[in-house]
Amino acid sequence: MADTAVHRVVIVGGGFAGLFAAKFLRRAPVDVTLVDARNYHLFQPLLYQLATGILSAGEVAPPIRDILRRHSNVSVEMATVQEFDLEARTVTARRPDDTVAVYGYDSLIVAAGAAQSYFGHDEFARFAPGMKTIDDALELRGRIFGAFEMAESEEDPEARRAWLTFVVIGGGPTGVEVAGQIAELSRTGLKGNFRRIDPADAQVLLVDGGKEILATFGDRLSEKAANELRRLGVTIRTGSIVTGVDPFGVDVRTADGSTERVVCRTKIWAAGVQASPLAGLLAEASGATCDRAGRIAVLDDCTLPGHPEVFAVGDMMALDNLPGVAEVAMQSGIHAANTIKRRLHGKAAATFTYRDLGSMATISRFHAVVSFRKVRLSGFLGWLMWLAVHITFLTGFKNRLAAMFHWTGTFASGGRAERTITVRQTVGRVVLEQAGEGDIARVVPSYTHPDNADDAPASDEA
Amino acid sequence: MADTAVHRVVIVGGGFAGLFAAKFLRRAPVDVTLVDARNYHLFQPLLYQLATGILSAGEVAPPIRDILRRHSNVSVEMATVQEFDLEARTVTARRPDDTVAVYGYDSLIVAAGAAQSYFGHDEFARFAPGMKTIDDALELRGRIFGAFEMAESEEDPEARRAWLTFVVIGGGPTGVEVAGQIAELSRTGLKGNFRRIDPADAQVLLVDGGKEILATFGDRLSEKAANELRRLGVTIRTGSIVTGVDPFGVDVRTADGSTERVVCRTKIWAAGVQASPLAGLLAEASGATCDRAGRIAVLDDCTLPGHPEVFAVGDMMALDNLPGVAEVAMQSGIHAANTIKRRLHGKAAATFTYRDLGSMATISRFHAVVSFRKVRLSGFLGWLMWLAVHITFLTGFKNRLAAMFHWTGTFASGGRAERTITVRQTVGRVVLEQAGEGDIARVVPSYTHPDNADDAPASDEA
Repeated sequence: MADTAVHRVVIVGGGFAGLFAAKFLRRAPVDVTLVDARNYHLFQPLLYQLATGILSAGEVAPPIRDILRRHSNVSVEMATVQEFDLEARTVTARRPDDTVAVYGYDSLIVAAGAAQSYFGHDEFARFAPGMKTIDDALELRGRIFGAFEMAESEEDPEARRAWLTFVVIGGGPTGVEVAGQIAELSRTGLKGNFRRIDPADAQVLLVDGGKEILATFGDRLSEKAANELRRLGVTIRTGSIVTGVDPFGVDVRTADGSTERVVCRTKIWAAGVQASPLAGLLAEASGATCDRAGRIAVLDDCTLPGHPEVFAVGDMMALDNLPGVAEVAMQSGIHAANTIKRRLHGKAAATFTYRDLGSMATISRFHAVVSFRKVRLSGFLGWLMWLAVHITFLTGFKNRLAAMFHWTGTFASGGRAERTITVRQTVGRVVLEQAGEGDIARVVPSYTHPDNADDAPASDEA
Repeated sequence: MADTAVHRVVIVGGGFAGLFAAKFLRRAPVDVTLVDARNYHLFQPLLYQLATGILSAGEVAPPIRDILRRHSNVSVEMATVQEFDLEARTVTARRPDDTVAVYGYDSLIVAAGAAQSYFGHDEFARFAPGMKTIDDALELRGRIFGAFEMAESEEDPEARRAWLTFVVIGGGPTGVEVAGQIAELSRTGLKGNFRRIDPADAQVLLVDGGKEILATFGDRLSEKAANELRRLGVTIRTGSIVTGVDPFGVDVRTADGSTERVVCRTKIWAAGVQASPLAGLLAEASGATCDRAGRIAVLDDCTLPGHPEVFAVGDMMALDNLPGVAEVAMQSGIHAANTIKRRLHGKAAATFTYRDLGSMATISRFHAVVSFRKVRLSGFLGWLMWLAVHITFLTGFKNRLAAMFHWTGTFASGGRAERTITVRQTVGRVVLEQAGEGDIARVVPSYTHPDNADDAPASDEA
């Protein structure tokens, strides 16, 4: 590392891991460069509220450089990382206008996150967008509210039913939250808006391959969540695998091996996760290995074998089978930053220990399930805790206020303030569903291989 | 008209004219069908605040059907009108999934508004987006905030200056408001966000072909507005025509006939207006004529010659050279609705008389110019009046509250809450600036012929 010059830290990715690493280095004698393909930090746990019309894009995705404006030792660069040279200690990135930038480092923290995985069926992506990026959520918002528009003007009852059927694939927190919100939206949020359909006739189907939804929350909360979802009108199909997706429906293979066709227009994919391709690039450059989800194997201090100056943290790191949640990302990001600080003071690197602070998922207005250490909460009490935690952790004071404002409206009336369907989304939908594979790749690269595309790796949060 | 059955009114367009017509018919014994290509009513006078990061899309564009949810005699249809058959009294429209819908009417109100005009230079559109639709504003938001991102990471001083130069073409209210906002944004809104550039170095150029900006406001206010803009750092070039636009700059022909090259990355077109192509279709169907701006000539009661049951109102109507402002749209929409009501009561149609309530434009925080009857206000007093009027007229209680909330934040700190650059916009920008003409038409139809495209005529407000 440099001796006389200031220690240079490059952070790749402005998600939870990268952002918290940068923040932690605030008063450290280092120069930090944070590189992200996007200008925003995505508050992923609330992305489903953007997709269902509750919050605006700015509320869940504040600009990274605005969050870090008082961190004078951090410089933020909007560029897509393309190459690591661990010998020369440089990171090469492409800026939005296709020019190339090279960043030299003394310490490197790679926190490029994860994207949706379609388990080898990337062709599903255009019919069933994922829930990992702002573009995903805006696309889904257009499709969800657009489906009700289409149903209203559809004369044929069968076609109408297809527009009013929503299939959510994946019963983890994101899938559960989206399914609950679509059901609630159809029951209360759109009241009075339609003349020929009753939006409450919407069918929401939640499909999961496992034995139960929210499997990581434990049986008791899984069951409570399932009951609340059923009360809202969501149909839950566990032990079921989606084997086909097309514009007009999905094919579901049930536990007994038979395949059923579900006719539906709107599908949301919340089933799998695949580490950013940058994990693979980093593995190649360092000789480290990746696991099946594409995550790079790190040592117990989050560094790469043979490269103590290179950290991989957050969703793209494979360590002790830690889950891909915001808490792991924040803590591992902070751990990497802290290790850099310790070393500058001549101290050795410490092992990363994850403190599990529990998990939570909101099912509907006034109902959430919370698993916090030994405590299991559900219903209104769980929801109050969910609210407190999210208000506390939402990034930035302004966003906290704005979100509280929108929440007050939504919780009070059930209404949705953010329902705009843009032309891009309408055009996008038509292009995506009707064009050939080659066309789509050219038109909307991020949708053929959602964020697995080579040109958009550093966009997901870590 | 039908005698026993309920009188059917079809309204084309959910802008100010169409929306106010529908609202006015609330208690009338008629069945109203409002058809719009978009799901939202655009509050056009605040669109510049979406483009510059102050308000969210939902705040300036609430869903039409939500605004009209208590109007039980109004049914809202999301479809793009393609044909009028004045003999059969039907309107044919294409729904987003390409199916066709036919609406029969007894009275027809066409209020399809106007789109940007490039005065025969549609090839400028992709480099200099207009300010007429939500997509326009989001595209511009991505370009404006993106330009600061690019400048920050640009090493070459000349290239950096190009990213920090913004040219606004057209010195009417929209151009003035956008220019003022970009200047203010660069001076206060981005404070502390950058490390290598000072965003306040941004140059904003306002180009207008006329003798002065805000020509319709009268000399005194024009001058006051110009002085305030100059104080903010905006350079004003009157008597200047933009003759060329490309990715790297604009060519400006000055009053003395010489042509000057202005190197700049970001251009905003706020110069001309062209009526929706539906005006032309309607003229063809009825034998009426259109003026040079494509507006259809109507009789003094806003009906078409020979078709007392067909009204053309708002921006697409040519009558007494009325200006294309929200007030004309609202009043003519209400006039059409009122005429339908009067006829149902056996009364004759009355002449449409426009009550000029004046005009206003905000230049910056705490500074606006207002021309109201004999009153001329500017500075803080004008701004207070601007605020009062916009809070009063913003559509919907929720949006009023939300906008006030965002305004409080922006006015207090100068900060901007909505700065998200989506991938679609980034991809769009690259595609738009680098692809050939044919590609663009296929990819983003609305941008080759912004909203003049045949597939998006009814989207603008009337």
